Amino acid sequence: MADPGSHIDLGIGRFREELFEFLRIPSVSAVPELTGETRRAAVWLADHLSEAGLESEVLETRGHPVVLGSWRGAGDDAPTILIYGHYDVQPAEPLDEWTSPPFEPELRDGRIYARGAADDKGQVHMHVKALEACLAEGTLPVNVVTLFEGEEEVGSPNLVPFVKANRERLRCDAVIVSDSSMFAPGLPSILFSLRGLAYLEVRLRTAGSDLHSGTYGGAVPNPANLLAGVLAGLHDDDGRITIEGFYDDVVEWDAETRARIAELPFDEREFRQAADVEMVSGEAGYSTLERLWTRPTCDVNGLLAGYTGPGAKTVLPARAMAKVSFRLVPDQKPERVADLFRAHVRKHLPPGVEAEIVELHGGDPWRADPSGWTFEAAERALEATFGRVPVLQGEGGSIPIVSDFERELDAPVLLVGFALPGSNMHAPNEWLSNENYETGIRALVRLYHELANPRKAPDSRS
Amino acid sequence: MADPGSHIDLGIGRFREELFEFLRIPSVSAVPELTGETRRAAVWLADHLSEAGLESEVLETRGHPVVLGSWRGAGDDAPTILIYGHYDVQPAEPLDEWTSPPFEPELRDGRIYARGAADDKGQVHMHVKALEACLAEGTLPVNVVTLFEGEEEVGSPNLVPFVKANRERLRCDAVIVSDSSMFAPGLPSILFSLRGLAYLEVRLRTAGSDLHSGTYGGAVPNPANLLAGVLAGLHDDDGRITIEGFYDDVVEWDAETRARIAELPFDEREFRQAADVEMVSGEAGYSTLERLWTRPTCDVNGLLAGYTGPGAKTVLPARAMAKVSFRLVPDQKPERVADLFRAHVRKHLPPGVEAEIVELHGGDPWRADPSGWTFEAAERALEATFGRVPVLQGEGGSIPIVSDFERELDAPVLLVGFALPGSNMHAPNEWLSNENYETGIRALVRLYHELANPRKAPDSRS
Repeated sequence: MADPGSHIDLGIGRFREELFEFLRIPSVSAVPELTGETRRAAVWLADHLSEAGLESEVLETRGHPVVLGSWRGAGDDAPTILIYGHYDVQPAEPLDEWTSPPFEPELRDGRIYARGAADDKGQVHMHVKALEACLAEGTLPVNVVTLFEGEEEVGSPNLVPFVKANRERLRCDAVIVSDSSMFAPGLPSILFSLRGLAYLEVRLRTAGSDLHSGTYGGAVPNPANLLAGVLAGLHDDDGRITIEGFYDDVVEWDAETRARIAELPFDEREFRQAADVEMVSGEAGYSTLERLWTRPTCDVNGLLAGYTGPGAKTVLPARAMAKVSFRLVPDQKPERVADLFRAHVRKHLPPGVEAEIVELHGGDPWRADPSGWTFEAAERALEATFGRVPVLQGEGGSIPIVSDFERELDAPVLLVGFALPGSNMHAPNEWLSNENYETGIRALVRLYHELANPRKAPDSRS
Repeated sequence: MADPGSHIDLGIGRFREELFEFLRIPSVSAVPELTGETRRAAVWLADHLSEAGLESEVLETRGHPVVLGSWRGAGDDAPTILIYGHYDVQPAEPLDEWTSPPFEPELRDGRIYARGAADDKGQVHMHVKALEACLAEGTLPVNVVTLFEGEEEVGSPNLVPFVKANRERLRCDAVIVSDSSMFAPGLPSILFSLRGLAYLEVRLRTAGSDLHSGTYGGAVPNPANLLAGVLAGLHDDDGRITIEGFYDDVVEWDAETRARIAELPFDEREFRQAADVEMVSGEAGYSTLERLWTRPTCDVNGLLAGYTGPGAKTVLPARAMAKVSFRLVPDQKPERVADLFRAHVRKHLPPGVEAEIVELHGGDPWRADPSGWTFEAAERALEATFGRVPVLQGEGGSIPIVSDFERELDAPVLLVGFALPGSNMHAPNEWLSNENYETGIRALVRLYHELANPRKAPDSRS
């Protein structure tokens, strides 16, 4: 067979120049003034998919467009792979913390610095170039659909409707998502879990308007004190969540997976330094990685009540607000957790206090079957490319679209990413390892091939 | 003797016109742009003290000036009374909630509406007119010093230094303060207690900057959750404050005073309506008035952490802040309470959490001796004027200058006010009862006379 590797050898300089061109487009989906730029990135991407040899289209949604690509030349017997990614990026603020401007990519110390370099334009581009290499050499062994959205950084409001409306065109045997990091430099990784999310806002009201703390203090309820009581009562001394029924749907992880997690080269000191915290803490009986990947959480994300300016104002607040979110693990459901939380709050408030509880965001947790055919293919491809057996890692964050894909397309999702820890996704000075950019393209070429030759049948997935 | 009453009968129309002139000057001490207006109010007041027959001066401080008046014609054997008040007012915002503009006084439904009508220009003016009436008729039986400041609404930063520097000029046998309300319409009242204040800000920090709640949630401390724990732990289920040693200096009130409080015509439904709350609450074992006047409190005045804008942001805050204040009762000291609170916070935080606790404001509690000579004189004067035995009432708020006067001048302070409940001090549509304006002037004339003829000797105060 012809060798996509030599195509990459010859093309890598041009690839990077193209990537820089892509990164120069400030496709910040959250900023209305940049809507034109976000569309420009979509068109740019569609053009480059076409140049790579795929049919491509820019499809409208109610928000930013979806870029769809397809190539079905591998024939009916070959599996079809859907590649998902996003071409929109986070806002770049605060701009003055960037060493080089966010939309003027710079190769520095082996890193490509730019907003979107890691999340996710760089990784999207790796797929485009891997596909180009295979198609240029006539060796793409799988049918491919690419689905690149422009609203991931604003919560993908139009993606599930799009998937539902285009289920036929998106039909596939597996979904690949490259929007994550490796566990450590040189150590290839496959994600095997994501936490879900239930994000709520509690608003307490005890009076029509703020009162004078001298005139009324001690004789009327204070919603800020009450809110503190509700929030403090969410955990016991072991760091376990006290909401009745909260753990009912939590599946304990198997001993083998816990053993694999324990074997990972995790350095707690480095973790503390990365988080800039003095110490770790959390649920008793679990390691830091287990706490992050396998256990649910309850965090206060925001608090607001009364007077918060400088100095003293003797106000007795009429209202108090908290944003509270739960990271969920299989088989918890955000809707059920929201209901349990609601009951908990009501139970812990005295009568006469008005409580409004609003669900702001939710997403299902997800856990892969590490013995499935896509996992095995990815393990072979990554080991062959990086020279090391890939590790399985969890992810504390949430990518709700992963469960959505599995549900809507009835296909397993494979999460293989090439960013590195500390790559400043969502922060100033985001970067992608220049070496990983190239090695990642090679790994993806191999992955397409391994997916075409699974040791297990695609339909053997559990 | 000549009758100051007929002077008032004849002059009341002119008095009110003068008061309106005084109220038209926007002497908002907090607003730097209005410094000139605040001074204009001082000069206006000094001029009117002179017209009334006192010597007057506008004396500079580091901030707004003090207006000093004096008349010593009663002779060495007569007691000297210091009358304290303030000519500055609260800001009038929000302006669009005023029915008539705040600095265009209007007599409407038997009420004088204007910023400062009740707090405190109207009550200051009542003293000036009562003095004028006595001096016009040659019947002022006490020596008088008037001390009117222009910084009460900004915390009186220069008053204690002024008092210390002018102790000789301010020497007196008693201090009268008219800056408060009667318990109910037609029911004259004498204040017999003020709560003190210890106002602190707690700032917790657990990380260098905000973290992603997915990436780190469950494995690092959350300062908002921890803060909630600290605050929730400040009260037990009976509404008692749990800080160790907090009640050590709290003096239980005598049965007689508690019985007098119980006899007051207090309507809890009206209280709830005024506060616009569904229900009262507080320390078990005490009535609402006892909770307000005789018991210390701990209220959260402000809360701030993480993301407080609309929608969901999955941030794990690095910092959390609470403003917490304690209303104090005799013999608590704000400094000691601040120390106890500091120890409490530290005790309830895990290691690795940075806690900064800042004292923002403090003031001593105060309690009068209701059997003292000034009280008896006031009781006689008020009963004779209003035709009802005055009630003694406490005040949940703090007027730190009261203890300062007692300490610096070694004279008892008498608090007799003529505003009514709901007079919107510090709020839009502030008003003073037009009837009380006139009756108050008459009551003050009587008070000066009763103070000149005490049934107990001035030095009999305990």
